[in-house]
Amino acid sequence: MSFRKHFKFNNFDFSKFKPKLCTQQRHVSTSYDFVVIGGSSGGLAAAKEASSLGAKVALVDSPRFESKHLKWGINGSFIKGVSIPKKLMHHAALFKDAIHDAKWYGWQMDGPVNHNWLELRHAIENYIKLLNKDNEAKLSDINVEYINATASFKDSTTIQATTELGDFNLKAKYFLISVGSRAQYPDVYNATEYGITCDDIFNLEKPPGNTMIIGAGHSGLESAGFLNGLGYKTTVMVRSIPLRGFDQQMAGIVVNEMQSKGVVFLDRCIPKSIKKSTSGKLFVSWTNIANESFKEEFDTVVFAVGRRALTKELKVEKAGVRVTGDEGRIQTFNEQTNVPHIYAIGDVLYNKPSQTPVSVYSGKLLSRRLFGNSTLTMDYDNVPTTIFTPLEYGFIGSTEEEAMNLYGENNIEVYHSYYKPTEFFIPQRPINNCYLKVISLREGDQKVLGMHYIGTHSETILKGFSTAMKCNLTVKALMNTVGIHPTIAEEFTRINVTKRSGKNPKPASCCS
Amino acid sequence: MSFRKHFKFNNFDFSKFKPKLCTQQRHVSTSYDFVVIGGSSGGLAAAKEASSLGAKVALVDSPRFESKHLKWGINGSFIKGVSIPKKLMHHAALFKDAIHDAKWYGWQMDGPVNHNWLELRHAIENYIKLLNKDNEAKLSDINVEYINATASFKDSTTIQATTELGDFNLKAKYFLISVGSRAQYPDVYNATEYGITCDDIFNLEKPPGNTMIIGAGHSGLESAGFLNGLGYKTTVMVRSIPLRGFDQQMAGIVVNEMQSKGVVFLDRCIPKSIKKSTSGKLFVSWTNIANESFKEEFDTVVFAVGRRALTKELKVEKAGVRVTGDEGRIQTFNEQTNVPHIYAIGDVLYNKPSQTPVSVYSGKLLSRRLFGNSTLTMDYDNVPTTIFTPLEYGFIGSTEEEAMNLYGENNIEVYHSYYKPTEFFIPQRPINNCYLKVISLREGDQKVLGMHYIGTHSETILKGFSTAMKCNLTVKALMNTVGIHPTIAEEFTRINVTKRSGKNPKPASCCS
Repeated sequence: MSFRKHFKFNNFDFSKFKPKLCTQQRHVSTSYDFVVIGGSSGGLAAAKEASSLGAKVALVDSPRFESKHLKWGINGSFIKGVSIPKKLMHHAALFKDAIHDAKWYGWQMDGPVNHNWLELRHAIENYIKLLNKDNEAKLSDINVEYINATASFKDSTTIQATTELGDFNLKAKYFLISVGSRAQYPDVYNATEYGITCDDIFNLEKPPGNTMIIGAGHSGLESAGFLNGLGYKTTVMVRSIPLRGFDQQMAGIVVNEMQSKGVVFLDRCIPKSIKKSTSGKLFVSWTNIANESFKEEFDTVVFAVGRRALTKELKVEKAGVRVTGDEGRIQTFNEQTNVPHIYAIGDVLYNKPSQTPVSVYSGKLLSRRLFGNSTLTMDYDNVPTTIFTPLEYGFIGSTEEEAMNLYGENNIEVYHSYYKPTEFFIPQRPINNCYLKVISLREGDQKVLGMHYIGTHSETILKGFSTAMKCNLTVKALMNTVGIHPTIAEEFTRINVTKRSGKNPKPASCCS
Repeated sequence: MSFRKHFKFNNFDFSKFKPKLCTQQRHVSTSYDFVVIGGSSGGLAAAKEASSLGAKVALVDSPRFESKHLKWGINGSFIKGVSIPKKLMHHAALFKDAIHDAKWYGWQMDGPVNHNWLELRHAIENYIKLLNKDNEAKLSDINVEYINATASFKDSTTIQATTELGDFNLKAKYFLISVGSRAQYPDVYNATEYGITCDDIFNLEKPPGNTMIIGAGHSGLESAGFLNGLGYKTTVMVRSIPLRGFDQQMAGIVVNEMQSKGVVFLDRCIPKSIKKSTSGKLFVSWTNIANESFKEEFDTVVFAVGRRALTKELKVEKAGVRVTGDEGRIQTFNEQTNVPHIYAIGDVLYNKPSQTPVSVYSGKLLSRRLFGNSTLTMDYDNVPTTIFTPLEYGFIGSTEEEAMNLYGENNIEVYHSYYKPTEFFIPQRPINNCYLKVISLREGDQKVLGMHYIGTHSETILKGFSTAMKCNLTVKALMNTVGIHPTIAEEFTRINVTKRSGKNPKPASCCS
């Protein structure tokens, strides 16, 4: 009997899946150059890169059953279990606007338009299956030993690998921690009993219905955005401020936009309990800032109150690796922890961007430094970020608050503008939240510190600009490039109103 | 009686439109600092900028009735008459795929989906009306004298303005030619009688039906792309090669993609005549390279065989301004023609990019140099271009052919890759034409010479990269940035296979 028999990931029944080589328990060796713990995308990339450079590599990864809803997958799967489904749910939600717009552009669709939750869920599952199969197949093609086990440190040079067939020890010259993180539950009565986390939404076996989302960080707002887009009544409970740590002007515009689409926000409220009625409805009780009590009925309650790195399960303290703060994260310098031969990447890192490409690239660079005589280190600055809410908010670099704190109000310039996407006019889509700003130094050619954008296709627009920021983009250079016309991306090159001027940042006309 | 009485632009009846100041015949003065001829977006921008800098400015512009289908509009309107409708038709055509995709993402739409040509046409017309009103209103707000007349040079310092009320002369210190261009007819029997040009499609009063497009430049292919997307049978007749002057590898992929969507290409064929049957169908006769004759019936025949600058009508030769080639275009250096006080911008320029933002920005910079003590000149290099076919082909900088000719095959490197857009998997959209390449110098950090991309949202992706190219983008810097995940824009940062290596540029897996 093996794990495989029990294990279902995203409803993919692994007992029917006949993998090749890599999924066998092949731990023929117990000593390696490099042991990677956690098969996230970053871990996989690091393992493959190290192996290609001649290192003897093992990848230890196991399914975890720590949440009743979220089933941790082979090959880590945190990333694929969250970021890809989230993007696809967002993409699905965008079709609501597309179908609306299409009619204005002459497309005739008679009859009602409805969304089927289960069809979407199954479609996403199938895609995840394919990605996992693909990764398994790739591992089997290269010389990385895949060990399907739960790992924990025994000491700084030894990992204990636990399987149902028994435990065994692994030694390595270098270790890489890439175990990722998990959405947390808060200390609220019945939270774990009746609530789910934002990671679990993608596995819901029935449509979420009227949903309460507790938490207004990026995961909470993204979840609210796509659920609302797919047609579910959605309420967001905000403890303090939405999108804490993000640019607060932009956060306000994101909330405005979501409200205009029908998402309800409960400001400065604290959840108290969840109770279940005989009919299966969930009664959520909460209090507001005036300590008044409220109670309302929902079909689904989602907690989006932050993530905890899975370092506790890994017993990193036994290796002497220090964690920082309540969320079990690890401080690193060039991916190195306080224990010199133990490294970490991805969502276990303290105060670093946690996106998949960052994790992948930092893992590759690390392997090249360890095994390939490279000296190139990861640059964590100016990584573009997009929040899919579903009108997207994307940014690169500093928030206005950060720039002001760092340089002082008199030394920065903030260019800003509303804009009118050409495509929005015909379907009469509101444009009042289409806004962007560029934060720069005030002196000289005005080095760009931050770029912020709310609108469609934020992710595609910002990628190139983040590359430009790596090339020391200035406002002068930005103004001196011309756009593709008519397109939203050109708006960044048409900025000319500074906040300091007090002028109205109203949209320029389409072609001037 | 004024022009206004007769004039209908895109079915907008100007006799019912009561404009303010600017549209009156106010030619109270006959001597100016700056006379702008042609109210295209670039002309308008130059006029407004000059006026804001204190210059005495007149803008001379008139409707033209030179085509039975295309009604040239107030405020120049070439740009708004073509580039905006084209973009909106492209946008409308994209909904065909969106509606197809939406079903795979769980959206249920019962019943047939059809497209109504007239609804789309009217929606676009309304938008154009709004833009024109907006521009008229803006002109009236600033101190630019608007003269509704047909202009032609009498000599190098005098323009004759012709109206139905009579002729009068205008003198100026500087002139700006921004009269744009017009799609041409070839010398084919009955071409003008029964055919239309690609500019005229947007004004068709009935659905185009089965359409023959003669010419495979970017206008021809874009027209074919959106007509096919909107559901019309579309055939493209290619005289020599498609997208002459563009990167030929990419041109081949564009054609492959269009063929896979159902567009028929007739290679190396020459049209001979159009005849009309009693039922109103158009019979097109042509020969192929073997001189075999063919004949087929169409509902609409569109010529997309190039454009001619409207310099002949302006009698530029009387001012001593030289034109180059058959298409009446003008060679300039920093927008200056061979006659020092006569300048030109936009689509009348010889061998310069003609996109609206280029025209607008070059016009603004010119006015700042003439009237604002500026020295900043227009940089026509690395202007991003997108062809909406409708899977978009966008590029910045050199073609592979140009780079090879300029630097030699041994001194350039071509990185290339196929890629798999995450969003394409669920709706099972084919990915075999999703391809990109980066052309760079081979030495050092590998300065990027050209970037080419075929896929969705090309325009939004490339804008930021064109800014990066202005900042001296290198392959090293490109590889050293991380993307937003999962998104197509990140693919540019994942390039690693060179053509020289002979390796398969197959897509990387989603998350590695």
